[in-house]
Amino acid sequence: METDKMTYLIDATHAPAARSWIHSANVDGCEFPIQNLPFCVFTADAVSTAIGVGIGDRVLNLRAAAEAGLLNVDPAVSRAAVASNLNLLMSLDEGRSNSLRHALFKLLLADSPGRDIVASAVPPMLRPIDEVVFHLPCRIGGYTDFLTSRHHTERHGRFKGLKDPLPPAFMSLPIAYNGRVSSMRVSGTDVVRPHGQFKDAAGRVVYGPAVAMDFELEMGAFVRKGNELTRPVPVEDASGHLFGLSLFNDWSAKDIQWWEQVLGPFLGKSFMTSLSPWIVTMEALAPFRVSAASRAADDPELLPHLRAASDQQAGAFDIEMEAWISSNGMRDSGQAETRLTLTNLRNLYWTFAQMLSHHTSNGCNLEAGDFLGSGTASGAEPGSEGCLTEITSAGTRPVRISASGEERRWLEDGDEIIFRACARRPGFVPIGFGECRGRLLPAQSDRA
Amino acid sequence: METDKMTYLIDATHAPAARSWIHSANVDGCEFPIQNLPFCVFTADAVSTAIGVGIGDRVLNLRAAAEAGLLNVDPAVSRAAVASNLNLLMSLDEGRSNSLRHALFKLLLADSPGRDIVASAVPPMLRPIDEVVFHLPCRIGGYTDFLTSRHHTERHGRFKGLKDPLPPAFMSLPIAYNGRVSSMRVSGTDVVRPHGQFKDAAGRVVYGPAVAMDFELEMGAFVRKGNELTRPVPVEDASGHLFGLSLFNDWSAKDIQWWEQVLGPFLGKSFMTSLSPWIVTMEALAPFRVSAASRAADDPELLPHLRAASDQQAGAFDIEMEAWISSNGMRDSGQAETRLTLTNLRNLYWTFAQMLSHHTSNGCNLEAGDFLGSGTASGAEPGSEGCLTEITSAGTRPVRISASGEERRWLEDGDEIIFRACARRPGFVPIGFGECRGRLLPAQSDRA
Repeated sequence: METDKMTYLIDATHAPAARSWIHSANVDGCEFPIQNLPFCVFTADAVSTAIGVGIGDRVLNLRAAAEAGLLNVDPAVSRAAVASNLNLLMSLDEGRSNSLRHALFKLLLADSPGRDIVASAVPPMLRPIDEVVFHLPCRIGGYTDFLTSRHHTERHGRFKGLKDPLPPAFMSLPIAYNGRVSSMRVSGTDVVRPHGQFKDAAGRVVYGPAVAMDFELEMGAFVRKGNELTRPVPVEDASGHLFGLSLFNDWSAKDIQWWEQVLGPFLGKSFMTSLSPWIVTMEALAPFRVSAASRAADDPELLPHLRAASDQQAGAFDIEMEAWISSNGMRDSGQAETRLTLTNLRNLYWTFAQMLSHHTSNGCNLEAGDFLGSGTASGAEPGSEGCLTEITSAGTRPVRISASGEERRWLEDGDEIIFRACARRPGFVPIGFGECRGRLLPAQSDRA
Repeated sequence: METDKMTYLIDATHAPAARSWIHSANVDGCEFPIQNLPFCVFTADAVSTAIGVGIGDRVLNLRAAAEAGLLNVDPAVSRAAVASNLNLLMSLDEGRSNSLRHALFKLLLADSPGRDIVASAVPPMLRPIDEVVFHLPCRIGGYTDFLTSRHHTERHGRFKGLKDPLPPAFMSLPIAYNGRVSSMRVSGTDVVRPHGQFKDAAGRVVYGPAVAMDFELEMGAFVRKGNELTRPVPVEDASGHLFGLSLFNDWSAKDIQWWEQVLGPFLGKSFMTSLSPWIVTMEALAPFRVSAASRAADDPELLPHLRAASDQQAGAFDIEMEAWISSNGMRDSGQAETRLTLTNLRNLYWTFAQMLSHHTSNGCNLEAGDFLGSGTASGAEPGSEGCLTEITSAGTRPVRISASGEERRWLEDGDEIIFRACARRPGFVPIGFGECRGRLLPAQSDRA
């Protein structure tokens, strides 16, 4: 499936031999080698946040590096580098974004002349990742969640007893809905079990703490540049409107969702959405592009507005994605986390370029910093289901989550869910996505 | 149906005898008498916008009035008054908002000592409404559209041939979905017929200009204050979180919507949404509160989180709402606009307080400036249908729109839709909502 004609730029920043003077970046299995250089936003001092760059087990303060004159970039990129979040950088074009990547690569490369300035800066320009406080990476104006895994969609359709588990539109367009932006939070924020209205086991409509709590393992794309209202982005241009990818958890209260859902998901999702602090850029991901999902002979033909040779050839990504669980009981007894899911982003039926182009196909304007979710990235095989609803057949077949025999139909209070991901390709250094982590707290009693 | 025990404050600012020194405000039928005082945001000078207050046929520059020391309000209200949009004022509590109303009322009252200062200010503090450029009244963080007219919902269910045209959840909770914020535009902005994917008359899935173009007549509420994530707003407190109401047009491409809709409306709506520039405040609307829709004996009982005596008693509003049409042909031949719809906001099954409280019932946080749409405000009677889909039975029975016999199944290029609304109650001066207006332009050919 790997594309032969790589249409996306692979350059010196992807060279497997490259090493950083920050030694933790050179350790086998490090998520943030010098070939990655993911962005985040973190608390820089008492009054402000700054953009950070992940390198080994450190985060580089991008503002401090820019102000120290360590980045050889044009003024527009400099202004974006010293900002308190990533919106300005996201508003620039690919070339500028790539120039910053190259400047950072040079600064962090083993023989960098800037090494001593960075290493000796006071206050420190490099901070241990473990010690910093992260924030959402940008102001997100719009959050759109897609539904692009055929396997996830079909399993859900079967639980619901639908005659045709795959909605007819699924094969013709990337299905989506608008998500709730205000309740998006950075990884590590606790999620509180929501109250809501749903049908209880006896079929009565009740209001109380949701029971059918679930995670959904997704990858999201941040939008670069944006487009004017009434000006669709052709699919062949859409990859230039993608800034980078982040892991996220589309926490769901399935009982609320199944009862309320007439015009799509609403309160079953909007109680909180957890985002990884790290954005792995499209530049870093260039080596891991693969061809889009192949369409079967009896699939409907791709309409022209969703079809571009470059996208079919290299619009998908080979990224392993994992979901892990740790319960109160497991932590108390010293048991390690258990993996619930191992899937791959290439399982998606639609590419991010198709999602973005389709989103704008009616003239809808996207803005730099908008967030497009892939939908639960489930695969076909057992073990690749991206949510508990699939794993437990909607709560009917409990899954064993620990050596001591704990089982889950749905998430229980205290459960922590951890997502991880890694892009791999022979001949390249694997790059990771950091963690997206969240723990479920009990419902608040004041609404019981 | 009118509530006897009025639990909302009616005071001197609602006195029917009150007159303004701006004579156009005292003319019978004026939408903006001194009892109204709606807010807007307009271009104040070459570099900035300002909050405006509608009075007669003028708009008062609130920043200019505040800077001239003409408003006797506390510093927090002063700061909000000189802002470039309404977010700061919306973030304040009801008492502060009401203090601004009283200060404006005094300034504009017939015998106001500030009259000469306002009237003689250079640059002018009062501008003709016809000559100003309006903007969206605030930065809208989240736009949620509800579905609260039983009549609208049932008619749609019947067109679709549903056995049970009303979804079961409709009677138990206010159904809603997240709308798209980026494509919201102020009244007067042209709307371009969107391209999209839909099933054509022959049942083929095609991509092209949408055919089934429709308007949807709605009222929206702007959120005051907001709430913290995980802290629901009890329904008895919810009216204090509503800032005011505005007319808006939830333009729809029904063919796109019907084909794409698996997780709710998406591209069938997001090509543009038109908002009136005017917000009529909750304070101005106090006299027009009426009891919530009565529930039939066989309706499901209202769950406690949606039930409050004060809301049942006075949570709805008696506001007449109208939709008018004018076509290219009608304008060319000098024909007046034709009214398509006369309905009333009290036709809604759910109150705005219930919508807001339900929205937060899972802990979802709302923010000052968020916008909650009522859904199409259709009534039961013929002539009160709030969209063409209902009027023409989904395009199957054309409606005559002009004396010369023009007919419509769906909107055609050049059609202009104008919404108007008026709150009335015996013993009070009626107040209007200004216009929400938009014209449909042809699809852009570059995506054909």
